[in-house]
Amino acid sequence: MSQIQSAGVIGAGVIGSGWIARLLLNGVDVYVFDPSKEAPKNVAGVIQNAERAYKNLLKSNLPKKGILSFSASISEVAKSSEIIIEAVPERLTAKQSVYDEIESNAADDLIITSSTSGILPSDLQSEMKHPERLIVAHPFNPVYLLPLVEIVGGKETSQEVIKKACSIFTHVGMFPLHIKKEIPAFIADRLLESVWREALWLVNDDVATTEEIDDAIRYGFGLRWAQMGLFETYRLAGGEAGMRHFISQFGPCLEWPWTHLMDVPDFTEELIDKVSNQSDDQSGQYSIDELMQKRDDNLVDFLKVLKENRWGAGNLLKEYDQTLSNSQKKLEFSELDLSQPIDTYTTHIPKEWADYNGHMTESRYLECFSEATTELMEIIGADEKYIATVGSYFTVETHIRHLDEVLIGERIYSKTQVIYGQNKKLHLFHWLHHDDGRLLATAEHMLIHVDLKTRGASMPSDLVMDRTERIYSAHKKLPAPDGLSRAVGDKV
Amino acid sequence: MSQIQSAGVIGAGVIGSGWIARLLLNGVDVYVFDPSKEAPKNVAGVIQNAERAYKNLLKSNLPKKGILSFSASISEVAKSSEIIIEAVPERLTAKQSVYDEIESNAADDLIITSSTSGILPSDLQSEMKHPERLIVAHPFNPVYLLPLVEIVGGKETSQEVIKKACSIFTHVGMFPLHIKKEIPAFIADRLLESVWREALWLVNDDVATTEEIDDAIRYGFGLRWAQMGLFETYRLAGGEAGMRHFISQFGPCLEWPWTHLMDVPDFTEELIDKVSNQSDDQSGQYSIDELMQKRDDNLVDFLKVLKENRWGAGNLLKEYDQTLSNSQKKLEFSELDLSQPIDTYTTHIPKEWADYNGHMTESRYLECFSEATTELMEIIGADEKYIATVGSYFTVETHIRHLDEVLIGERIYSKTQVIYGQNKKLHLFHWLHHDDGRLLATAEHMLIHVDLKTRGASMPSDLVMDRTERIYSAHKKLPAPDGLSRAVGDKV
Repeated sequence: MSQIQSAGVIGAGVIGSGWIARLLLNGVDVYVFDPSKEAPKNVAGVIQNAERAYKNLLKSNLPKKGILSFSASISEVAKSSEIIIEAVPERLTAKQSVYDEIESNAADDLIITSSTSGILPSDLQSEMKHPERLIVAHPFNPVYLLPLVEIVGGKETSQEVIKKACSIFTHVGMFPLHIKKEIPAFIADRLLESVWREALWLVNDDVATTEEIDDAIRYGFGLRWAQMGLFETYRLAGGEAGMRHFISQFGPCLEWPWTHLMDVPDFTEELIDKVSNQSDDQSGQYSIDELMQKRDDNLVDFLKVLKENRWGAGNLLKEYDQTLSNSQKKLEFSELDLSQPIDTYTTHIPKEWADYNGHMTESRYLECFSEATTELMEIIGADEKYIATVGSYFTVETHIRHLDEVLIGERIYSKTQVIYGQNKKLHLFHWLHHDDGRLLATAEHMLIHVDLKTRGASMPSDLVMDRTERIYSAHKKLPAPDGLSRAVGDKV
Repeated sequence: MSQIQSAGVIGAGVIGSGWIARLLLNGVDVYVFDPSKEAPKNVAGVIQNAERAYKNLLKSNLPKKGILSFSASISEVAKSSEIIIEAVPERLTAKQSVYDEIESNAADDLIITSSTSGILPSDLQSEMKHPERLIVAHPFNPVYLLPLVEIVGGKETSQEVIKKACSIFTHVGMFPLHIKKEIPAFIADRLLESVWREALWLVNDDVATTEEIDDAIRYGFGLRWAQMGLFETYRLAGGEAGMRHFISQFGPCLEWPWTHLMDVPDFTEELIDKVSNQSDDQSGQYSIDELMQKRDDNLVDFLKVLKENRWGAGNLLKEYDQTLSNSQKKLEFSELDLSQPIDTYTTHIPKEWADYNGHMTESRYLECFSEATTELMEIIGADEKYIATVGSYFTVETHIRHLDEVLIGERIYSKTQVIYGQNKKLHLFHWLHHDDGRLLATAEHMLIHVDLKTRGASMPSDLVMDRTERIYSAHKKLPAPDGLSRAVGDKV
């Protein structure tokens, strides 16, 4: 996949800011041009929301954040960037003059992508000196969380440019959907336009309020679409007979007068007032920022659910997270310092680990210690593959001391000492610390090596035994940890 | 809320079966009429999927399942039921003849609800003797999971009937959306029709395949709609300026040729083939039942996410779960048998508690023991309100023995003995058993009572102290549990 170091974003509204946040958090330096004085403040707010969301989205750490620079001109952005993302208002001439300024100042092969919701790329590129470099890359709000980006080439776009852009977007966690046939509004916005028009009629004719329409979506088919879309959902509505049966049952309804298909509502002042006022009644109790954070929390958790269930957008997230994790260098066994307890697990405490008052809940301490054990097992060679083919260490006994509290969102880390490690037995002691150094808890575990098939005690492989013994013989020179071999209720 | 004991369902296709499953699992006896020989088998399959989904959806136990009876005639159903749900094919005359047969055999005030996707209730009731009893109650597939049911009255429907039906549907966990103005296809299906038509054009014109269209939805706006719908989402696209700004920016696009609004595609054999074949390519690797289970897993987890985040359909689920829990009688303190360890926690192990091979993962044992502690705290009076206003017991030390494995989906329960309980200290011992009696694990905890404000050790309230001491003085006559006061690594 193409990894870029720098990108330029022209226009820092809702969409431009979302692009900026996604790129920066994926380690790309971003040069921004936006004439508005408000732009830096607005962009900072979006980045903050994106950071908040990503903390909860990924298991891996993100790369080092990119550097954000506001440039004084489009030409300055063009000179510093490996790709240009145009996100200015939907006016053909405005966009064309941006491209003109870029072309006068940048290398001939600098890729330009337009975030337009529906203007044809062939129209966008019609006045360009190097039209082959322009594509549409249409993202969805919030750009830092929603994976979809529609990729559309114009008549003169080169296939190489499409390929390279898709690769760049994949690298920052997106789902580039290459639309092969050029059509105004592409795919998603054609569907959205249809619904938007029909919904406006329902409000206009006082059939339903904006809130009732939203409820009809989010308590109903919206929950289906988030995972399967339209056709796969209808395949199921057809029962065992599938899509063909569904069409035979419901196809004819298309001819019934079930929508306002022949007509477009006029945007009278009255209609605008009605929609805006109803929207205030519905959502006005939340600030826009509160709503955005709520939306992001839900999106993050939906994506995590899909990842857990290995479905759709979740598969993409899994791959992205794995790629991030692979790119983080791990120490080789021979590079470890065995004269000290070993660094094992570290995490930001995710929000679902909170108790009623925002502290990490009791059972998650054991989850952290389990992860520390898993990490130690990986170090000695009892990794995922070993577990799937040879055996594993099972915990038979655990002792935990809770020493201090910690709030969600904070970073914690663990260190691990091998108390005993020979043959089938592994005796571990973990310390769990707050990022500021405070000791939060300790755990002592006895583990037994178990055979994958018999599920009875067994000897580990030679590699695992050798590494375990090497750590054990180094760690037994360390002092016994404070709290070792305690029973519950022992005097301090 | 109206709770009913019995309901009749006429027509047991995909929608009828979904109604049957939801009602049965909510403790309602269901009488079914469907002339098809396949009906009992199909209904059984849907009930099985619903039971699978509900196990994971709710914290509370469902009431005792209702009794399912297949009746030989519509009149038999009509005589046995407190409400009739009609779910026969979308033909006005077919529906009217069902109502006629019901009216000839049932009490004059038996409510009849039609599951029609779009026929006007005024038309449905036009030939009835008691038209005031008919409403449309339009649900969404899968009916046992999606909360939305559109409620529409006809010209002659009584307001009392609408009110009663809404109350019945709320009681079985649904979201009745009362649509005040009668219009063909109501709200949701008008929106769905628009999208369906536009999507068919995209397939017809080879702009996109069914899979590409589904991806454009589920990697993009589908994730937004599952939580906020259309208008609240667009409010955010407008940025700080909200809905009014959004309309001023995007309203004009409605006049652009961004949809096929003026035209309906013909359902030629060729188009039907194209859609069906593309759908097979897209989803054919899964059986319909596999797809339905995948959909249900995702829906259940989305609803749980929304419940956790206190949003939309999740608020409804929370209330529903709470209502179920409230209806389950708990023993008073004075009714407890203190001469034995106390029954504390019980659960079906949810699927997200699985390790890589389907066993309950290590940290969830501590979660079960935490829940057992919470349950014991509630018994002694340290309940949610006490924790929010007075103080709580904090675990300072834990010892766990893992003795046997358990698979997800299985039921487990805990028993608890108070080892010591005076002043600020509470020393507990829990046993965790499989439903079949096997001992899975034990846990020993030392807890200290902590003041809400100072977060330092403090004395519990008189009530809590009195109850704790009463259990302690009874439990100290019991033998010391096997494994008490062990340190990790002690000889057996």
